Amino acid sequence: MKTPGPWNKVAVVGAGMIRFGELFDQSYEQMAAGAWRACRESVDLGLDPSQVEAMFVATQRGTLWGQEGIGGNTVPSAIGLSGVPCTRIENACPTGSDAFRVGAMAVASGVHDVVLVIGVEKMRDKSAEEGLLARAAGGHPIYTRGESAPVLFAPFATRHMHEYGTTKEMLASVAVKNHYNGARDPFAHFQNEITVDQVLAAPEVCSPLGLLDCCPQTDGAAAVLLVSAERAQEFTDSPVYVAGFGVATDHPYLHEKQDYLGLLASRLASARAYEMAGIDPKQLDCAEVHDCFTITEILDIEDLGFCEKGTGGAFSAAGETAIGGSMPVNTSGGLLAKGHPIGATGIAQIIELWWQLREQAGPRQVALKNGYALQHNVGGRGSGVSVVNILTRNAK
Amino acid sequence: MKTPGPWNKVAVVGAGMIRFGELFDQSYEQMAAGAWRACRESVDLGLDPSQVEAMFVATQRGTLWGQEGIGGNTVPSAIGLSGVPCTRIENACPTGSDAFRVGAMAVASGVHDVVLVIGVEKMRDKSAEEGLLARAAGGHPIYTRGESAPVLFAPFATRHMHEYGTTKEMLASVAVKNHYNGARDPFAHFQNEITVDQVLAAPEVCSPLGLLDCCPQTDGAAAVLLVSAERAQEFTDSPVYVAGFGVATDHPYLHEKQDYLGLLASRLASARAYEMAGIDPKQLDCAEVHDCFTITEILDIEDLGFCEKGTGGAFSAAGETAIGGSMPVNTSGGLLAKGHPIGATGIAQIIELWWQLREQAGPRQVALKNGYALQHNVGGRGSGVSVVNILTRNAK
Repeated sequence: MKTPGPWNKVAVVGAGMIRFGELFDQSYEQMAAGAWRACRESVDLGLDPSQVEAMFVATQRGTLWGQEGIGGNTVPSAIGLSGVPCTRIENACPTGSDAFRVGAMAVASGVHDVVLVIGVEKMRDKSAEEGLLARAAGGHPIYTRGESAPVLFAPFATRHMHEYGTTKEMLASVAVKNHYNGARDPFAHFQNEITVDQVLAAPEVCSPLGLLDCCPQTDGAAAVLLVSAERAQEFTDSPVYVAGFGVATDHPYLHEKQDYLGLLASRLASARAYEMAGIDPKQLDCAEVHDCFTITEILDIEDLGFCEKGTGGAFSAAGETAIGGSMPVNTSGGLLAKGHPIGATGIAQIIELWWQLREQAGPRQVALKNGYALQHNVGGRGSGVSVVNILTRNAK
Repeated sequence: MKTPGPWNKVAVVGAGMIRFGELFDQSYEQMAAGAWRACRESVDLGLDPSQVEAMFVATQRGTLWGQEGIGGNTVPSAIGLSGVPCTRIENACPTGSDAFRVGAMAVASGVHDVVLVIGVEKMRDKSAEEGLLARAAGGHPIYTRGESAPVLFAPFATRHMHEYGTTKEMLASVAVKNHYNGARDPFAHFQNEITVDQVLAAPEVCSPLGLLDCCPQTDGAAAVLLVSAERAQEFTDSPVYVAGFGVATDHPYLHEKQDYLGLLASRLASARAYEMAGIDPKQLDCAEVHDCFTITEILDIEDLGFCEKGTGGAFSAAGETAIGGSMPVNTSGGLLAKGHPIGATGIAQIIELWWQLREQAGPRQVALKNGYALQHNVGGRGSGVSVVNILTRNAK
């Protein structure tokens, strides 16, 4: 990177979302409007909608196969911003986090000073057979028949347990911790605590993963407002800056993976993000990472450098990733409790970090030491792409 | 815009495509690989694939409902660039042109110096009922049942004829001219000339539009290489610069349109692009515009300022938009003859202009006077979004 970190060319000055859940009573457009309203109202010094110069809409696919497929040109009109340039970004499970990154580059390019990024996804309006995930697994003529998301991650759990002694109880500790956090997040889909015994007794989905090792299918929407760093003070006295980001792709199919012990895309993406931000993982105060399954969070915290490879299970079971631990992870409840409306997920993770860095996270607030926080997604036939964004409250 | 035009922060130093057509014998990934190869080989001073720092893949939806839905993380591996950051851009019919713009902003942001933009779309592998266009029209619960693309544009033809005396023969002149050009383009889907009589005698699709007033459904792929302007000379002695661009959205549904005489999104998008490039339409040497139907090209040349509103039909019939005319339009054959593989369309239009501005267009070459050329798409429930890119061979 040409700019030694933190990059800090772009600031997040607004952030808001709707409560995630099964939102059969809201249309795609209504969900987007709800997120936009919450974002607008969060801008400390106010935002006139006419100040929005460009938009990016993060929607992976949605289940309706209609408007969400061209969300870039239906959302502006639906939320009262017709005329504004708008582009839909899609990048599998990191769709929202990548839209955030693209929006930040649009600001840094000097073309637009004020950019709205909205993530919105309908996951529940069609049956599983007709829905997004069935379609996602339908692509390759040979390799992927019958492959659903649990099938893509379960082999990593099996191998990790064999190689490192990771246990089902350690996996369960991730679900218990994230549900504990979700029970304290008014925007989470699931707001109930669970126990290790409940996780172990849940119906098996794809061995060794049971029902409570898996994130739910959730509808949701979330929005953030990005502005050029030099104009941040027009909108707030407490801006959060984009310190850096990184993206990496990997071979998409399971049989092409190097091993089943970690995700190469996450390692590459985070290395790029740390370099751009000029920090190492020890400087992070908290993180929101991609826990589509319990094993995924364990892989993540190893691949992102929060603990040594192979120690993620014990690190979690020891409480190190809890709100009061040495490295709080998924204080929002994560995908496991908060939910995973794909296009909205990454944006919502960034919102949680925005609240944390502004000390507005209420009962989920972590202690701030260095003022950095990391957001991470991985996805696309399991782990074909990873996106990492690093935020900071520190001015450059 | 903060930078008085031409913007010229980014240069196009490579451009290549595969022949458009019904490509049942090529997979989505093979099409992408063909475009990448052609692009790479077009770089005058050579390109090492390891120089590519980031990619954007333009795919609207494809008909297979599999890999194309996550093309951002399957294309890099398929073309030998696994690891490289890659994002899929979608914006209805302007998907390719918008990916070009987003790629340009990524370069201008300073984050990436060398960016590959690939447009690729499978339109023919599934039936019309299952395919992309049927899905595109399926979104709204009330307004859009049975609405196919001709239904979205035919009312504009009817009204334009009533208001301005535009005739079916004038519409036909667009199809005749674009097929004449396509017959001279080795990458075009249709490479045959047609006559006005043939257009008028063709089966009616949606009155007053007949079969030869409509573009075909076509498979295709196209790729361009973008680099920061200060590094262009490492790749070529004949760079083409991005002088400016503009995007605008509009209310997506027909009943929300201001009138049926023009497309507001095209007017707004081009005004923004002209301002950013610091030129007016008279400085253009040629243009590639969105001729999904003959009437669309007539609306375009009026809305883009090539002729007065209402005079587009006569302007076309008089030969002003032919290769030797005062304002050559769609020298590639346009969507009507070259084809419209959605994600690839805008990129392929840009490639035609790249050839024109480098005087490599062979029998289609226009006379260069001012060194500017314009690319335009409009789409998304007809005209919910428009993207305009302006290129120049003039250094800043």
